[in-house]
Order: sequence, then structure tokens, then C-alpha cells
Amino acid sequence: MGTVNIGIIGLGTVGGGVVKLINSHHDDYVAKYDIDLAIIKACSRDQAEAERLGLDQGVFTPDWREVCTDPNIDIVIEVIGGEHPATEIFETAFANGKHVISANKALLGRHVEHLASLAAQNGVQLRCEAAAAGGIPVVHAIEHDLMGNEILTIAGIMNGTTNYILSRMRNEGLGFEEVLKAAQEAGYAEADPTADVDGFDAASKIAILSSIGFKTRITTDDVYMQGIRNISATDIQMADSFGYIIKLLAIARKTSEGIDVRVHPTMIPKNHSLANVDGAMNAVYVVGDAVGETMFYGAGAGSFPTASAVLGDVMALAESIAKGERPIAENEPFARTEPICPISDHTTRFYVRLKVQDRLGTLAACTNVFAECGISISHISQRETEPEEGVCTLVYLTHDTKEEAMQHAQEALASMDSVAEVASIIRIEDISLWTEGVFQN
Amino acid sequence: MGTVNIGIIGLGTVGGGVVKLINSHHDDYVAKYDIDLAIIKACSRDQAEAERLGLDQGVFTPDWREVCTDPNIDIVIEVIGGEHPATEIFETAFANGKHVISANKALLGRHVEHLASLAAQNGVQLRCEAAAAGGIPVVHAIEHDLMGNEILTIAGIMNGTTNYILSRMRNEGLGFEEVLKAAQEAGYAEADPTADVDGFDAASKIAILSSIGFKTRITTDDVYMQGIRNISATDIQMADSFGYIIKLLAIARKTSEGIDVRVHPTMIPKNHSLANVDGAMNAVYVVGDAVGETMFYGAGAGSFPTASAVLGDVMALAESIAKGERPIAENEPFARTEPICPISDHTTRFYVRLKVQDRLGTLAACTNVFAECGISISHISQRETEPEEGVCTLVYLTHDTKEEAMQHAQEALASMDSVAEVASIIRIEDISLWTEGVFQN
Repeated sequence: MGTVNIGIIGLGTVGGGVVKLINSHHDDYVAKYDIDLAIIKACSRDQAEAERLGLDQGVFTPDWREVCTDPNIDIVIEVIGGEHPATEIFETAFANGKHVISANKALLGRHVEHLASLAAQNGVQLRCEAAAAGGIPVVHAIEHDLMGNEILTIAGIMNGTTNYILSRMRNEGLGFEEVLKAAQEAGYAEADPTADVDGFDAASKIAILSSIGFKTRITTDDVYMQGIRNISATDIQMADSFGYIIKLLAIARKTSEGIDVRVHPTMIPKNHSLANVDGAMNAVYVVGDAVGETMFYGAGAGSFPTASAVLGDVMALAESIAKGERPIAENEPFARTEPICPISDHTTRFYVRLKVQDRLGTLAACTNVFAECGISISHISQRETEPEEGVCTLVYLTHDTKEEAMQHAQEALASMDSVAEVASIIRIEDISLWTEGVFQN
Repeated sequence: MGTVNIGIIGLGTVGGGVVKLINSHHDDYVAKYDIDLAIIKACSRDQAEAERLGLDQGVFTPDWREVCTDPNIDIVIEVIGGEHPATEIFETAFANGKHVISANKALLGRHVEHLASLAAQNGVQLRCEAAAAGGIPVVHAIEHDLMGNEILTIAGIMNGTTNYILSRMRNEGLGFEEVLKAAQEAGYAEADPTADVDGFDAASKIAILSSIGFKTRITTDDVYMQGIRNISATDIQMADSFGYIIKLLAIARKTSEGIDVRVHPTMIPKNHSLANVDGAMNAVYVVGDAVGETMFYGAGAGSFPTASAVLGDVMALAESIAKGERPIAENEPFARTEPICPISDHTTRFYVRLKVQDRLGTLAACTNVFAECGISISHISQRETEPEEGVCTLVYLTHDTKEEAMQHAQEALASMDSVAEVASIIRIEDISLWTEGVFQN
């Protein structure tokens, strides 16, 4: 039987889950796999956390350096998040010949090239299954299982908080602020919800997944980002009447012009698999040229689901280490080989909702703006649903439109006296593009 | 750059896909992974197949032994199916120190213990991602990515032909025979559809997946099996009216009494993720105690999707081989450690449709049979929808019922003069059991 020594840094939600999972399954792992996992160092700012988790005395340390330099440790698990000292933890652990497992999407979304390169130089592995889509083993699927494919599209629901909010808004007809507040009270959203609702979290994850999938460097800063704050119950209802559902999707496509990568609210057909992903669940759609469409569904966050992903990485290393073999070293990370498509060049259909003065000529004037911007309309409807007197709602669906043209139209509409508000502009995703390039059987 | 030498046996749908995929992506694999895949031997009964695939002269051989004994070959891909000579191919390849990749679910569903044991003894690997759910990388997910979990349930749509048939029956209101014929003409069903429509194919796959997931030996013969021949358009409509959809599910659960493993038509709620899997697609639901519910969706068959799974296995080996390292040897396979639950002990809700004589006392007599068998009824309805005069339809939904009790009821009902036909009995799956034992976050 081979013992694998683990040092863990961070004993919060994820770290606590990892410790509990190893404790509860330790004997199982020995019996089934001949793998004896031992947590020999655990670092946290608060010793009480280590005690609550029942970690043996002598295991706790407040100093992460002790973990990264302990000559007996094989694997360092970094689950504190943030940029510092997480970066230094990676650097020190690699320099000391340790493999690092991390759930730190914010850091990896920006700096994986530097960190993976250090791992490669030191002959060790950097593993991050838990950093994208939590418990769903999609990092491994894209990096290894689908390796025979050229990956064409990665798209999905990668943030549970926003999916929970949008699901409740839809199911209960409530507004964003109201549901956000309820979500915060129920622990589904943080006190400062920015990272989730404004799309940063999903952007980090799609940066990680698309870098792996497309074999080129994509960082969080490359991702066009728009959150869900402006989505209203009205938009959700209108989408429904057109056969769509609104989801915050992270989408990355390999195109002939480069990588199209973005996070924004999207209308997709109600019968699409992603449309049925409800509540805080995540789902990642991966299209490969050989395999065609695949989807990976599960919990994107939470203590035990994330711990499951961390343990998957631990076991991948432990299978070799327990047999006295060295896991294969990390490959050199992919450098930037593909350009990122600027959002201004993106072409899509749009849903546009305007609140306008109900007077002669308004409809014609608004519609004229679209024509002048070269935007072709596929649907228009006018409703007198607003409580404000003399104000009515105009809804347009466009044909394929360049983002740039829509921006001009938005500015022109907003400056019109007869337009009270450009209430919302939401993209309608052309999902047929996702499977372009799939081999025909 | 490391060259990895491959011998392939079988150049039909799957083998042809593998050759085409390697040919089209060869340079990509070199550029991205420093892996040079070379097919140096290809075996088929028909040399013309090799020529059509553009394989170099000298690569073709009609003799599989030449492939299995070639000292230069690292990996043997067995994609001929059937039991012989597939078994001998495995045995000879292992004896010659070669890793074997196979899509042969019928063979592996029955004999994986013998074959994996040979691989372990010879220090090589047996890989079979393509043998269950085609292109979906669920074998690896269960075997490795979710290794930190105790797997509680594996359930899903693992046969594309039957899902295609049931989907068309539902969407178009057609009967089984009619759709089967259309499916055969369209190439979605084989001339002899037995393996698909009677559940053998799905049973092989759930035997493979549940053996891996539950770490105990389960063979195809352990799986209770019932196909879809008796499902009618009427049952599909009735199911719909109760909020259910009928799917041919393969289900395996770890229970305190042992492994509950079965393939049969099942009513599941319309809003369940598996209910929305349409056409020939597959989806596998995997529940782990830590990760909770996950689902893996994609193409379960077809030339390129299956080739994608084979290439995933090739690459997993090639990553080591190309670096001059030996892939870790196969572990000793799991022996039978858990009993298989007999179907007679299974408890479930049932849908029962009877065609009965429309005369005084029939309803009471039928209902009485259920009571006498100890079966509690949750719904009953009577409809005069049959074209035959004097015959009407009785539909019962039961509360939880032992299979044994239902069998007694079925026999008693069938023997009654007033019962023209026990038209169908379909299980209603209690999906809440699937997540029993999941850790609470």
C-alpha cells in the first residue's frame, strides 16, 4: 500500500469539504485502490477550523510556507483563493517539487501561463478540475478525454448564483433585486455579489476551459463580459413568448477569425438542453469535430461537489505516487496563438425593448433608426402595458446584426425625445453555429 | 517527439472512423502534443476497406495475429466486436505486452474480469471508453474523475436506437412496428434489432459502468432486462397525461441489500434531465455521495463519436509512451463483492393498462385483484376509447408495490374472463431514491 502525503492550505468551504471527504472515505480508498491519503499539514488563519475538522494536533500550521516546503508532502492543495499569497504558494510548492491542486479560478483565469510554466519546469503537475464548473469533471474531459477532437465550441452555464437568480425570476415572475436579496439571505449569493452577477466568475471559468480546449492562451481579460443586472421579469416573459429562455452563458467558439469568447445574458431556444438547467446547477456544452455535441451537467459549487473535483485530481496523482512512480510532468502551457475576436465584430440577432411616448410618429421614427443603422428587423410589436400614462413598450427582434451597428442604434434611440428608455438589449444566440465543423458520420 | 505505434483490428464503422480521425488530425497531434500516432498495421477481412481508407501498402494484413505479435506495436485497437476472435486478440496482445483499446461492449459486459486480469498480469492496460455510451467520456469520469466519491447511482439512456424509436413514437404518435421499420430504413436500427430493442445492448453497458462504479463484478447476465416491443403510442400518451415520459433506462443503484441493476422501459417525470434527451442521443446520470447529481450527454454511437472515445484512450496511453514512460498497469479487476438484488424483491410504482369487457362488475373485480395481491392503488381511470365494441380501457397507477405482488396480479388479471388483455405494465421510477445518501453541504 502506498501512502500519499497531502498538505492543504485553506480550511474554508472547499478545504473543509476536502478534509471531511478524505476522512470519511480514507478506509475505502485503501480497500479499493490501495491508496492511503494522509493530510500531514493543514494551513489556515484560524486554528479552530482545523480543530472543528478533527485534524490531528501537529497537523495545523498558520504558515503556508511550512506546507510548501515540507519534504514529506507530495501534493499541495491550494483552496484559499485570491491572488496573494496564492501565487507564492504555487511558486514555492513547485520549486520544492510538489504537485499543486487548486480551485482558484480568479488566479488561474489570469495567470495560468506563468504558473503552468513553472510546474512544467519543475517536472510536476498543476491540476485545476475544481476551478471550472465545480464538481463537473469537464476540465479533464476537455483536456484529455476529448483530446482526439478539435474542440469547436465550449458554452454553458458556469455560474450557479446567476442561474439560480434567473431561474427564480422566471419561475416566480420576480424582479432581479428582489431575487438577489432572497438569494443572499439563503446563502446562494454573496454579500458582495459583483463577481457572480457581473460575469467575472463565469469569465474566469471560460478563460480556463477555452485555453485548454483551443490550445491557445485566453485570459479573463480577453473575455467580453456583461452581467444580469439589467434583466427584468418583463424580458423573461417576452423571451418566453418568442420561444426563448434567458441564461447567462459563457461562450467560446473557434472561428476562422480567431476565438470568439464572451459572457452575457443570452436568449436560447426553450428546448435546448442548456435551457432546462435550473437553479444553482451548472452545465457545460462541448462540441468536438468528431464527437459532436456533448454536455456535462452537475453542481458548479458547494463544499462537497468542489471537494469531489479536488479529490479527482488528488487520485489522478495518487495512482502513480502510491505505486512509487512519478506522475508525468505538466506540459508547457499554450501561448497565445489565436487572436481574440473583438466584440464589435460580433454578429448576432438582438432583442430590443424600448419604452416610448405613445404619440404619432414614434413607431416610425424608432423603426427608421434601425434602418439607418443597417439593421434588418424580423419582428416588431407594440404593447400598452406600462403603468405610466402615455408610455408604451416597443419590442423588436432583429436579423443578424453587427454589434457595432447595434451600438449606434442604441445611442441614436437613447437620444430621441420620444424614447423614454432603451429598457433592454439582449443577444439571441445562433446555436447552429456551435456545431459548425462537426464531421458527418 | 515520440512516435506511438498502433495496430487496428476491424475497419468497419468504428475502425474506419478511427483511421480517418487519426489521418485528419495527425499533424495537429504532433504540433499540440508532440505525439506522432502511426497506424503500422491494420487488419480486416477485406483489403478494399484498407485501400478505401488510404492506408499505406504494407499496413494491411488479413491476420489479426500479425497485429498482436508485431514487436513494434504499442497499442492494439480491437473494433471487430463479437466474442471470437476478439477474446483471442485480447489474450495474444496482452501476452505480447500491448495495451488494448476496445469498443466491444458485448464481450466486456460478460468477460471483463478475465480480460482485465490478464492485462494486470502483463502490466498493460485494457481501456474501453468507447464500450459504454459511445463518444461520451463517462467511463473515465466514473473510473477516475469521480474516484473520491462513493458512487450511488448510475442511470441513463444508453441505447440510441430505442431512444430514437421512443422519441419518434412520442413526437409523431406512431406505433412501435411502424417506427422500427422507418428506423431500419434510415439506418438507425439494424436488420436484426434484437440487441437494441430487447435491452441487451443497454444491459452490457450498465454492466460495464456499474462494475467500474461500484467496484464489484456485475455481468450482463446479472442485469434484469425488458425491452420496448410492448410500448404503444397509447401508453406514451397516457404517460404524458400523468406528467411522465417513457424511456428505456439502464439503472444501477447501490443499496444496503446489494446492487439493484436493471434495464426496462420506465416512466420518469417530464421535467427530469433524462426526459429531454431526444432522438438517438445518450445520457448517463451519475450520482456520487460528494458530487451529487451529474449528467453526461452526447452521441452514444456513430463512426466519429465512437472514434473520439477510442482516441481519448489512445491519447491517455500515448502521453506516457511518447515520453518514453510506461503507462501504469491495469489494476486487478474487482471480484464480486456485492450481491445482486433479485428483481422479485424490487419495489416500485406501476402503471397498468387493461382492456376489459364493459359490463357490470368488471371494474370491481379487477380492482379487487389488486387489493387481494396487497397492491394499493393511487389512480384509476376508465375510458371507452377502444374501437372494439364493448371493450374499454382501465388504467391504474399503483403505490409502491413489490414486483412479486405485481406478477401475481398480472397472472390473476390475465386469467379473468372479463379481461380481454393486460395491455401493458410499466414501472414508474422513484427518482428520489437515486440521490439517497448524497452528503448535505
